[in-house]
Amino acid sequence: TWTCCPSPAAPSTSSPRRTASPSSCAPWTCAKLVPRPESPSRPASSGDGPPGLPSGHLCRVWGRGDGVGTKRRPSQAVPQRVLQEVNPLQKVPVLKDGDFVLTESVAILLYLARKYKVPDHWYPQDPQACARVDEYLAWQHTALRRNCLRALWHKVMLPVFLGELVSPETLAATLAELDVALQVLEGKFLQDKAFLTGPHVSLADLVAITELMHPVGAGCQVFKGRPKLAAWRQRVEAAVGEALFQEAHEVILKAKDSQPADPTLKQKMLPKVLAMIQ
Amino acid sequence: TWTCCPSPAAPSTSSPRRTASPSSCAPWTCAKLVPRPESPSRPASSGDGPPGLPSGHLCRVWGRGDGVGTKRRPSQAVPQRVLQEVNPLQKVPVLKDGDFVLTESVAILLYLARKYKVPDHWYPQDPQACARVDEYLAWQHTALRRNCLRALWHKVMLPVFLGELVSPETLAATLAELDVALQVLEGKFLQDKAFLTGPHVSLADLVAITELMHPVGAGCQVFKGRPKLAAWRQRVEAAVGEALFQEAHEVILKAKDSQPADPTLKQKMLPKVLAMIQ
Repeated sequence: TWTCCPSPAAPSTSSPRRTASPSSCAPWTCAKLVPRPESPSRPASSGDGPPGLPSGHLCRVWGRGDGVGTKRRPSQAVPQRVLQEVNPLQKVPVLKDGDFVLTESVAILLYLARKYKVPDHWYPQDPQACARVDEYLAWQHTALRRNCLRALWHKVMLPVFLGELVSPETLAATLAELDVALQVLEGKFLQDKAFLTGPHVSLADLVAITELMHPVGAGCQVFKGRPKLAAWRQRVEAAVGEALFQEAHEVILKAKDSQPADPTLKQKMLPKVLAMIQ
Repeated sequence: TWTCCPSPAAPSTSSPRRTASPSSCAPWTCAKLVPRPESPSRPASSGDGPPGLPSGHLCRVWGRGDGVGTKRRPSQAVPQRVLQEVNPLQKVPVLKDGDFVLTESVAILLYLARKYKVPDHWYPQDPQACARVDEYLAWQHTALRRNCLRALWHKVMLPVFLGELVSPETLAATLAELDVALQVLEGKFLQDKAFLTGPHVSLADLVAITELMHPVGAGCQVFKGRPKLAAWRQRVEAAVGEALFQEAHEVILKAKDSQPADPTLKQKMLPKVLAMIQ
């Protein structure tokens, strides 16, 4: 059973909450990667998000302050049967807003940004500024995201969690590819700007930082020797809010401490994982 | 030298032209794949697009009728040096609109759709209808697009054009993965609708059909045994206009007739191609 997770980010609302609630969250990116086979299927609870925000069995999200945050209901570990009903692809995140079910984290972010009319900087109205965000969001799928995911799995999750041998050559090649993607992230996207697409934080930064936390969680020093990228990370963290930033990445940053999965789970997961990171 | 190419589609304008001009076009998707090392570097010409449309050395696009089309200037084979200046990633398509340079076909499409206020159905204002388009555009990067690209290269371009052996097992695995992606395209996205995201043609259909023409160009029968998908293809072709549809895919549909590349070109291309289709 794959754990469903909140949409990657909820746009800001009038809710002034900025302090992380320790019980509330798994980051969506982590939940994407780490199946939780033993999570009990509790009945969906409701009611602790601001009125009008997307709700349902699987996702509940809200924004905090002028930042962007997510919350996962404690009850959101759902049986595969339920997830399959909602999203036949059995992928997370999945958003359920009334009868409207939406997959793909980038699409969910854009939907929330539009629906809740978040501050312009997240996804600007200006066509060129907006195009810069779209450009990043399109590029990252097969570049940064792919390489961050592979680095996490090749370095930690396959060998430790699933007990699958990853040869030193494979790992080295993966890390070299990640390095290329990081160079592009810094050289083409960040350049000398404060944020990836301009002077203000946008959905591009949010998606990027969340991907980068994958190799960081695996113990890769992605910011080492990259002062511009490191300074950008600080700016993103400040823009999102430190507590929320930490909360959002709490699970993924523990990836390197993963324990081996049990054999049944391993057998079930391995083909899916290999397909995902190919 | 990689051939630069037009943006994947230009939104409709007041131009009533619907008839393909045989000299005008290579489809952007094809140009993405097929370097044209021997194209002469002619001076950029100008002036045959509607006023105000993106222009520059590298891209010139326009819409026709109420459909969506692209035009590539005959002069758009550019030296690597120039392409590198405009787009350090040396990828195509690249859009140049005044001083504004934009990469990533999906971002270019969205930019054009917004800038030229194309009919709503291409990228709807309604948040849920729009989210459906975003969902497809996000999904396809690592799913349909990846598999269509790999099918083309594994079946034809690597063995014939670049003279690289592709084992029957590799080709079979690639085609099996393509089959899975086609099932998702039909089962999750198309379902029983007229188009991928609803009753009207959208950018999702445009991007999807263009990707599907890759394996078709390689001789794969992607529509065989898939009557719903075949009927959808007919509807997309009718929505775009048959002449424009044919024109847009003229080059890619000749992929299976490719001739071997010369050794120098092969040496230059192979690493890039392998990185692209991994």
